[in-house]
Amino acid sequence: MRNVRLTVQYDGTAYAGFALQPNGVSVAEKLAAAIAETTGAAPHLTVAGRTDAGVHARGQVVNFHTDTRIPAERLAPALNTRLPADIRVLAATDAPADFHARYAARSKIYIYTVDNSPVRSPLWARYAAHEPRRLDLAAMQEAARLLEGRRDFAAFRSTGGAAKTSVRHMLRCEVWAEARGPAGLPDPGDGRLVRILTEADGFLYNMVRIIAGTLLDVGTGKRTLEDVQTALATGDRRRAGKTAPPRGLTLELVRY
Amino acid sequence: MRNVRLTVQYDGTAYAGFALQPNGVSVAEKLAAAIAETTGAAPHLTVAGRTDAGVHARGQVVNFHTDTRIPAERLAPALNTRLPADIRVLAATDAPADFHARYAARSKIYIYTVDNSPVRSPLWARYAAHEPRRLDLAAMQEAARLLEGRRDFAAFRSTGGAAKTSVRHMLRCEVWAEARGPAGLPDPGDGRLVRILTEADGFLYNMVRIIAGTLLDVGTGKRTLEDVQTALATGDRRRAGKTAPPRGLTLELVRY
Repeated sequence: MRNVRLTVQYDGTAYAGFALQPNGVSVAEKLAAAIAETTGAAPHLTVAGRTDAGVHARGQVVNFHTDTRIPAERLAPALNTRLPADIRVLAATDAPADFHARYAARSKIYIYTVDNSPVRSPLWARYAAHEPRRLDLAAMQEAARLLEGRRDFAAFRSTGGAAKTSVRHMLRCEVWAEARGPAGLPDPGDGRLVRILTEADGFLYNMVRIIAGTLLDVGTGKRTLEDVQTALATGDRRRAGKTAPPRGLTLELVRY
Repeated sequence: MRNVRLTVQYDGTAYAGFALQPNGVSVAEKLAAAIAETTGAAPHLTVAGRTDAGVHARGQVVNFHTDTRIPAERLAPALNTRLPADIRVLAATDAPADFHARYAARSKIYIYTVDNSPVRSPLWARYAAHEPRRLDLAAMQEAARLLEGRRDFAAFRSTGGAAKTSVRHMLRCEVWAEARGPAGLPDPGDGRLVRILTEADGFLYNMVRIIAGTLLDVGTGKRTLEDVQTALATGDRRRAGKTAPPRGLTLELVRY
């Protein structure tokens, strides 16, 4: 039996998340239907990162076992003709029999995007949260550094996750600002994007969005570096910030 | 009577263009309704660049005369509460009595964006046209240079425009490639964006989209540099490329 690996990109705005949901349409449902139509058999999908409702993916990875004889290079076009335009299979390859999209991942990279501008940009509304107050980047960067390394992120998860331990290895937690538009032109609305990149060997439920909410609090002055240290040390969810809205989050890349 | 200048940003996907249309909802209609509700009088809107159906604007400029006593700095928030989320007033200021958003413009900058990738990105679908064949950037850049300077763009306009002369001063026509995603991460779909920037003292009807269609033909090898020179020399619309789709076009900035 073949083990097919897919690289999948989607705009999560219209979906109840990647995983099959009792209510609402999921990305997995659309993908499984396209695979079933194409190969003649309903697949069991294994996914690298279970994104929540409204969260996007630039480089999601999925694998499934199949008996189809369709060559890998013809699978992506075949699936794309059956998928809605907001979900696209970027690539399909034959993977080793034991490849598992989640367990084999060395790390995943998520970027949280904030439209840090007096007025929210309609051109970023789908892909960024909005914060009109000017964020203190230097403070956010200092707080981000506190989260790097092997840390207990118990304060940075929502209940409902199934993880046994809340210790994760945060390889990178970086904050920077960039223009909202291309080509170095001045922003007509005096705005900018603030990006929060996290790369870790694994993520707890809502972890990136809680980190984003906490760093945003640091950026607006609502929370201090000491507060972040206390959250880390106590593992107390109430010491961290709110779960930032899903639209700002994109699963960028999975490294194997 | 005051002359108020607005900087307006919109996602044009849902609109039949900026200008009032017999069929379909226009940006001007939404803006005029919000102004009328806020000031108590229906405005006559003057716009810098009449964008077509589906075209976006990052820095559109509009002016209108009004007797309202609402201070300029309170106008933008007041209008935004009455506008749909895909249209936003970024700024409102009091302009000199003779300021005219179109006549006073020294130049306008449009950028045409192409998703030059094997599979169209769902994350760029609203803001880029798709070209799966790898574009020859160097050839496009050479062709773009031919369009710079004071030129007769008769071959690069659709019928229906009201302009008396088809000579325009193209200050910049530049082509470059950039990543589809942030942070220098590898593209999961082996893709990139190709941007076409045009800055001119004025534009003919569909001019940027016809230039984009022509440069795309040069990039795919369908058209040569000589073809572009012939189009310029003859003024024959049939010698230029197709009108590229509206979703790729954004009015970036108006310079005064």
